[in-house]
Amino acid sequence: MAERDMVQTRRKSSRNKRDEILSVAIDTFGRDGFEESKWADVAAAVGVGSTALYHYFESKQHCLYVVMAEAIEIARADFDRITGENDFATGVRKVLEKGFELDEHEVQRSRVLVAGQTRISGRRKSPREEQARQAARVRGHDLEVAWATFLARGMEQKLIPEANPQLLSRTVIGLHSSVWLWYRPGGMLSLEQVAEFYVPRHLAMIGLADGA
Amino acid sequence: MAERDMVQTRRKSSRNKRDEILSVAIDTFGRDGFEESKWADVAAAVGVGSTALYHYFESKQHCLYVVMAEAIEIARADFDRITGENDFATGVRKVLEKGFELDEHEVQRSRVLVAGQTRISGRRKSPREEQARQAARVRGHDLEVAWATFLARGMEQKLIPEANPQLLSRTVIGLHSSVWLWYRPGGMLSLEQVAEFYVPRHLAMIGLADGA
Repeated sequence: MAERDMVQTRRKSSRNKRDEILSVAIDTFGRDGFEESKWADVAAAVGVGSTALYHYFESKQHCLYVVMAEAIEIARADFDRITGENDFATGVRKVLEKGFELDEHEVQRSRVLVAGQTRISGRRKSPREEQARQAARVRGHDLEVAWATFLARGMEQKLIPEANPQLLSRTVIGLHSSVWLWYRPGGMLSLEQVAEFYVPRHLAMIGLADGA
Repeated sequence: MAERDMVQTRRKSSRNKRDEILSVAIDTFGRDGFEESKWADVAAAVGVGSTALYHYFESKQHCLYVVMAEAIEIARADFDRITGENDFATGVRKVLEKGFELDEHEVQRSRVLVAGQTRISGRRKSPREEQARQAARVRGHDLEVAWATFLARGMEQKLIPEANPQLLSRTVIGLHSSVWLWYRPGGMLSLEQVAEFYVPRHLAMIGLADGA
C-alpha cells in the first residue's frame, strides 16, 4: 500500500471507531439517561480501553457535546434542503414532519440532544470540552437563526402573522424538543401518531392555517 | 417554655433551615446550572456544615427532586384555584398568564424544574433520593392529568376541538417549560413581553381563539 493510502486507511478506521463510540453513546445515553450512563460502559461496549477512548473523547460530557453538534447539523441539513425545495407553507409543514421521521437510533439521538440542552450553558475548564460545547452552542444558535429567517420570509409574504421571528423560532424548536422528554421508542404511540398530533399544532402556533 | 412549645420551636427552626437551603439551592442551580453548582457552595452560603446539611438533604440530586416537587405543587395549587374560579376560556388564559407572573427567584425555580426534567427518569440507588424522585415524578404526572382533565372539559363544552387530552396537556406544559431553557432574569425581554408572546400561541395551539 502506498503511504498515502495507509494514512487514509488509518484515518478511515479512526473515523469509524469514533463513529462507533458516538453511536453506542447515543443509544446508551438515550436509553438509560445521560446521568445514569457510565462512560466506562460505553467504552466496554465498543471494545476500547480508556486510553484509546480518551483519544477520541475526553469525557462523557465531551462526547455529549459532539453528539449534540452532529444532531443539530443533521437537522440543519434537512432544514436547508426542505425549505430550499419548497414554497413557504409546504416547506414549514414538510420540515416539521421530517423532525418525526426517525428510526429508533435517531429518536435516542433526539433524546440526548434535549438532555444536553440543560447541560450546555456553563463554561468548561477543559479546553477540549469547552471547544465542543461552543461548537454545539453555535450550531444550535445558527439553527434558531435559520428558523427565524425562514419564518420572517413567511411574514413578508403575508402567509403568517407578523411576530418576533426569533421568539417564534424558539416556540417551534421548544415545542418540538419537548416531545423527546417523554417519547421513547416502542411506546404506546407511533411516531406517525405523534407527528399527526404535533405538526398541526405547530402550524396553528405560528399562525399558518392547516392545509394552507 | 413548655416541652411542646420547645419541640415546636425546634421543628420550626428545622423547617426554616431546610427552606433556607432550598432557597439558596434554587438560586445557585438556576443561575450557575445544576451541573456546575457545587453542593458544598450551597452549604457554605447557608452556613451549615456537611453533617447538618446531610440531615436535610442527602445530596445535590436529592435537593433537586425536592425543589422540583415543591415547584410543581405550587403550580398545581395555582392551577386548581384559577381553573376553579373561572369559566373554561378565562381559566385557560389566566392559568397560562400566571405561569409568567414570577419574581427572579421563581424564574430560577422554573429553570431548575426544567433542568430536572431530564434528570428524573433513572431510578436512584439511595432510598432517600429515590423517594424524592418518585414524589417529584408523581406530582408532575398529576399536574399533567389535571391539565388533561381540564382540557377535556373544554372539549365537552365544544370550546376547543376534540383531541387527545393527554397529548394536548403535554404540548401546553412542554411549550411553557421550553421558555425556561433560555429565559433568565434581567435579560432583554421582560416576562410580560414573553407572556404576551407565548400565551396567545398556547391558545392557538389548543384551538381556543384569542379573546374567546
